[in-house]
Amino acid sequence: MTAYEAELTHIEQRELFYTGKAKSLYRTNRPDVLWVDFRDDLTAGDGKKRGQEAGKGALNARIAAHLFDYLEGAGVRTHFLKYIEPSVHLVRAVQILPLEVVVRNIAAGSLIRRIGWEEGRPLSEPLVEWYYKRDDLGDPLLAEAHIALLSLADSTTLASLKEQALLINTLLQKKFSDAGLLLADFKLEFGRLASGTIVLADEISPDTCRLWDASSRVSYDKDRFRKDQGDVLGAYREVARRLGLV
Amino acid sequence: MTAYEAELTHIEQRELFYTGKAKSLYRTNRPDVLWVDFRDDLTAGDGKKRGQEAGKGALNARIAAHLFDYLEGAGVRTHFLKYIEPSVHLVRAVQILPLEVVVRNIAAGSLIRRIGWEEGRPLSEPLVEWYYKRDDLGDPLLAEAHIALLSLADSTTLASLKEQALLINTLLQKKFSDAGLLLADFKLEFGRLASGTIVLADEISPDTCRLWDASSRVSYDKDRFRKDQGDVLGAYREVARRLGLV
Repeated sequence: MTAYEAELTHIEQRELFYTGKAKSLYRTNRPDVLWVDFRDDLTAGDGKKRGQEAGKGALNARIAAHLFDYLEGAGVRTHFLKYIEPSVHLVRAVQILPLEVVVRNIAAGSLIRRIGWEEGRPLSEPLVEWYYKRDDLGDPLLAEAHIALLSLADSTTLASLKEQALLINTLLQKKFSDAGLLLADFKLEFGRLASGTIVLADEISPDTCRLWDASSRVSYDKDRFRKDQGDVLGAYREVARRLGLV
Repeated sequence: MTAYEAELTHIEQRELFYTGKAKSLYRTNRPDVLWVDFRDDLTAGDGKKRGQEAGKGALNARIAAHLFDYLEGAGVRTHFLKYIEPSVHLVRAVQILPLEVVVRNIAAGSLIRRIGWEEGRPLSEPLVEWYYKRDDLGDPLLAEAHIALLSLADSTTLASLKEQALLINTLLQKKFSDAGLLLADFKLEFGRLASGTIVLADEISPDTCRLWDASSRVSYDKDRFRKDQGDVLGAYREVARRLGLV
């Protein structure tokens, strides 16, 4: 255990300062460390549909911790510091960029409504999309010209985010492929450390990925909740099981 | 009159082959020339709202003819050949590109819903947006990555379209400014001649532009119909009057 890791054993949870749709963020006794509680809440359609699945938060926290560790091991810088069972991450405090970065390998979700392709059609190469992280506007798609207009990120930052997103995609595709799962698409968020360095933040879990059984193409992700397909928790648990976590 | 123009005096209208939301396209006795009838129909919200204003088609045909002549005179290649009173354009036959090109100078319409700005806020520089010309999908916004995925246009073509759109914007802003009107935004369509050359097509009119009185900011365009502000025809006639056409 390094001195830094040892310090993380003395982190104390302090006041709540941000409540997201599925996670609550608390300050700690260290200003550069946040305490993230993965809740059991599920939302879809910009929060219009809401539900709860007891144990979902813990499964997501476990899966996301595993994936952050895996990505860090492959050279991706993330905000992740430590997993505290059952449902907490200690993370570096970052300023979240107001862009959701979506990477797509197979047509699904809003892409099929936008371009009229059938669900399941593979893309010739991975597609990176930018969405404006604004719940009040319904998280709309942005072209790079809008991002420039809004001064959300300069072109160098966008190029770097895209490169990181594509690297993460390659790594996650390999990881999920080994678990018999297709990674149809997923959403990433990035944040800026006090030093200015941009790192991967938020979470990677069945809440933020479309994961399909490689043979049957059955969904093992939040689409089970969006589409009322039932056994949401069983699907999330199956992802954890296939990753060797439960 | 050139020999080419003389030939255009012997064009005969033949069969209808395409009915758009506000124009009907007919073949002629020449395969490279189409007969475009500007109708009195008005639609908004992807065709959900419909209306008619007797005389609107003729006003738009007159205004669009004037603007195409003006742009041609400034070096912009267009599909326009000849105006036949009251409501017909003879145009070169083109294959319309499935992209609507929107240029914005001032925040209005779907942009304010997308980025959350108040209507009327000027943009720091003109914004060029691409929309997929697909009524069945509601003409959605596309990023350049979607255009590449769909093979709708290569990057050289996109760069050329953007350059032309910005030149047209500069020319139209000047033209409307001289008429006491602000050009908030407008939509262009381009088409490919048999030779492969891409030229400006469709129309430029109060149906496809947001035109505001420079002082009062009152709308002289289709927003009067969209927003039920009344006297749609009077507004279109005022645009024609300020352009010296009626």
